[in-house]
Amino acid sequence: MAGLPDAVKALFDEPVFVSLATVNADGSPQSTVHWVARDGDDLLLSTVRGRRHADNVERDPRVSVMAFDPGDPYRYVEVRATAHVTTEGGRALIDDLMEKYRGRRPYQGDGPDAVRLVVRVPPEHVVLRGY
Amino acid sequence: MAGLPDAVKALFDEPVFVSLATVNADGSPQSTVHWVARDGDDLLLSTVRGRRHADNVERDPRVSVMAFDPGDPYRYVEVRATAHVTTEGGRALIDDLMEKYRGRRPYQGDGPDAVRLVVRVPPEHVVLRGY
Repeated sequence: MAGLPDAVKALFDEPVFVSLATVNADGSPQSTVHWVARDGDDLLLSTVRGRRHADNVERDPRVSVMAFDPGDPYRYVEVRATAHVTTEGGRALIDDLMEKYRGRRPYQGDGPDAVRLVVRVPPEHVVLRGY
Repeated sequence: MAGLPDAVKALFDEPVFVSLATVNADGSPQSTVHWVARDGDDLLLSTVRGRRHADNVERDPRVSVMAFDPGDPYRYVEVRATAHVTTEGGRALIDDLMEKYRGRRPYQGDGPDAVRLVVRVPPEHVVLRGY
């Protein structure tokens, strides 16, 4: 396990957009943009079961989450980790993210059958540039 | 092969920062931030031999390049491809990128032994959101 420096915690506490890299079934990489929340040193991403990156994480939980400071893109952080996926708290997380990024809640973008997942990312390896 | 819509070409022609996802030797994903140039539908990234992501691409050329519009992060593009790596044109590319992103040339950040690589990314699969 690795901790996050305070400056990096502050970055993730802003409404910053992060990239999530996962591995497809054939071993090739995939990447998507996500909102992010933070719980201590852990990063929390929200997704819906059945999306490609969600399927990827449920099959192979190794991920890389990367963010750069929009005000200074030469400062960036990569967090590599083995993610934990759960449905517990899935609705609360997307509502919290909606409030953080859009200033209102609840999140109403899901269809009735959407299963919201929490992807918890406990940092194992943290790469910093510019911090 | 897949083409890029004009709006996406325009995004890559801006000094936008892209994420490059590669696969480590153990099969886990890795991601880094890069400058980007465009040659027709191909994306061109510059790196230096021996960096982790460069080693990854030379071992397994399957990559995912992702960018979002800084003015509207809900518009983003993912390009999945098998990259081609070459030393040819490596110095010219980093000089061009220095001019695009920093407004001056040449790039002088490399040590004397740095081997500059061109990572050419011909789109095979393009995922668009918001475009």
